[in-house]
Amino acid sequence: MLPTINKDTVLCMSLAGRPGNFGTRFHNFLYRELGLNFVYKAFTTTDLPAAIAAIRALNIRGCAVSMPFKEDCIPLLDVLEPSARAIGSVNTIVNDGGELTAYNTDFIAVSALLDTHAVPRDGRFLLRGSGGMARAVVAALRDKGFEHGTIWARNEQKGRALADEFGYAWRAEPEAEPAAMLVNVTPVGMAGGADADATSFPEAMVRAADTVFDVVAIPAETALVRLGRAHGRRVITGAEVIALQALEQFVLYTGTRPDPALVERAAAFARG
Amino acid sequence: MLPTINKDTVLCMSLAGRPGNFGTRFHNFLYRELGLNFVYKAFTTTDLPAAIAAIRALNIRGCAVSMPFKEDCIPLLDVLEPSARAIGSVNTIVNDGGELTAYNTDFIAVSALLDTHAVPRDGRFLLRGSGGMARAVVAALRDKGFEHGTIWARNEQKGRALADEFGYAWRAEPEAEPAAMLVNVTPVGMAGGADADATSFPEAMVRAADTVFDVVAIPAETALVRLGRAHGRRVITGAEVIALQALEQFVLYTGTRPDPALVERAAAFARG
Repeated sequence: MLPTINKDTVLCMSLAGRPGNFGTRFHNFLYRELGLNFVYKAFTTTDLPAAIAAIRALNIRGCAVSMPFKEDCIPLLDVLEPSARAIGSVNTIVNDGGELTAYNTDFIAVSALLDTHAVPRDGRFLLRGSGGMARAVVAALRDKGFEHGTIWARNEQKGRALADEFGYAWRAEPEAEPAAMLVNVTPVGMAGGADADATSFPEAMVRAADTVFDVVAIPAETALVRLGRAHGRRVITGAEVIALQALEQFVLYTGTRPDPALVERAAAFARG
Repeated sequence: MLPTINKDTVLCMSLAGRPGNFGTRFHNFLYRELGLNFVYKAFTTTDLPAAIAAIRALNIRGCAVSMPFKEDCIPLLDVLEPSARAIGSVNTIVNDGGELTAYNTDFIAVSALLDTHAVPRDGRFLLRGSGGMARAVVAALRDKGFEHGTIWARNEQKGRALADEFGYAWRAEPEAEPAAMLVNVTPVGMAGGADADATSFPEAMVRAADTVFDVVAIPAETALVRLGRAHGRRVITGAEVIALQALEQFVLYTGTRPDPALVERAAAFARG
């Protein structure tokens, strides 16, 4: 339930090829709990320039951007903040009186989690995936000082390009030497997907690693996360990433930073 | 309070130079009461073409249009229904998969109220005002078969043009002969206005009339409405007009017609 909407209510929105429920539920939950006169609504579009123009014309305060619009929106915006410039990909637009500033809060969230979980920078990481989110994660690893890493991706062209851009190795199959951190940025383990119960890394690799990082957000406890916990490894979950990136959007839009307990409740509600 | 918004929630909106609260409260109240997965949000804009393009780009189901956009929006729309064509003024846009159809539910509401209140067509009316809403009311009077009427307006150019277009008389001051129906389409009597306690017609005219019709909606019981009731006259209120025009919008957007008791509750909530 939301408070009554009136003429002064501020709209935030999202644009995605296939809108999900997480952002809508997360933001509206916090608006209600904090008594903010905002409402959040998800959209899809077949006319991205008109959808971006709508942000200005209707004075929409903020807009989350998902696939397939994260790169195509860039020429339509005014200012690229470092988080979006680092990876050439936007997931957040903030509208200040018609000036649209672009951020990438996935990059911000992954960078912050590497700090809060105190992941040692000198270990080698092995990352599976080569899509848009993999780019945000690899850029954050680079930004946080990880020197050694391998992109493990079947798609050689995309995998090699991503590895080359950020100074890591690419492999179609993983090396024999163990990696200190395993990072899954594929859909493997995602609820409702074809590989919902699978893990991107075999148990032997998990046993040999210090840290397991799964970017899959739903469920929070993927098979890989459970495996990491079972072996007592440092674990970073996609549920943390999605909540933190949404929180950073929330702060950018509203200027309000909710306390961690409330954020956790909002994230649990949003996943549910 | 509204039900939880999710990715499937349908947005309806309004565009006005100075948004009010009536539409937002009326529609959102009914969505909640009827369990419809809709949300309604008011906007203003300085870029009307982009705002209309937003309706298509974001697949917004419907849009109420208020001053000063009622005529300027016409070239941006696809189909003009008779209610909008009759007066060259739009207050409602319905979006069917990108095709925008224009209506004027003020015209529809006034026409319907002249029927439900069984106002005799052979009496002469005296109408004060010459703005956009006056145009909707005069067109409805013409459409409903009122043969004799006078537009009483200080602005000769606008008053005469309106009278000429629909085949009525224009006067800067009212004739001596009594009118059967008095119609106020000026802001006189509006809550918060300069003339909140005034009436557009002297008591002698009310005494000589059969019907008093005040288009001012807030408060529902204007000084003129109270005067009409005190003299036992047939009374049509602006509160009826605003609720009925909003109801017709609601039906166009949702395909659902709420029962009259629920509409009355929604209108009372929206005024409150």
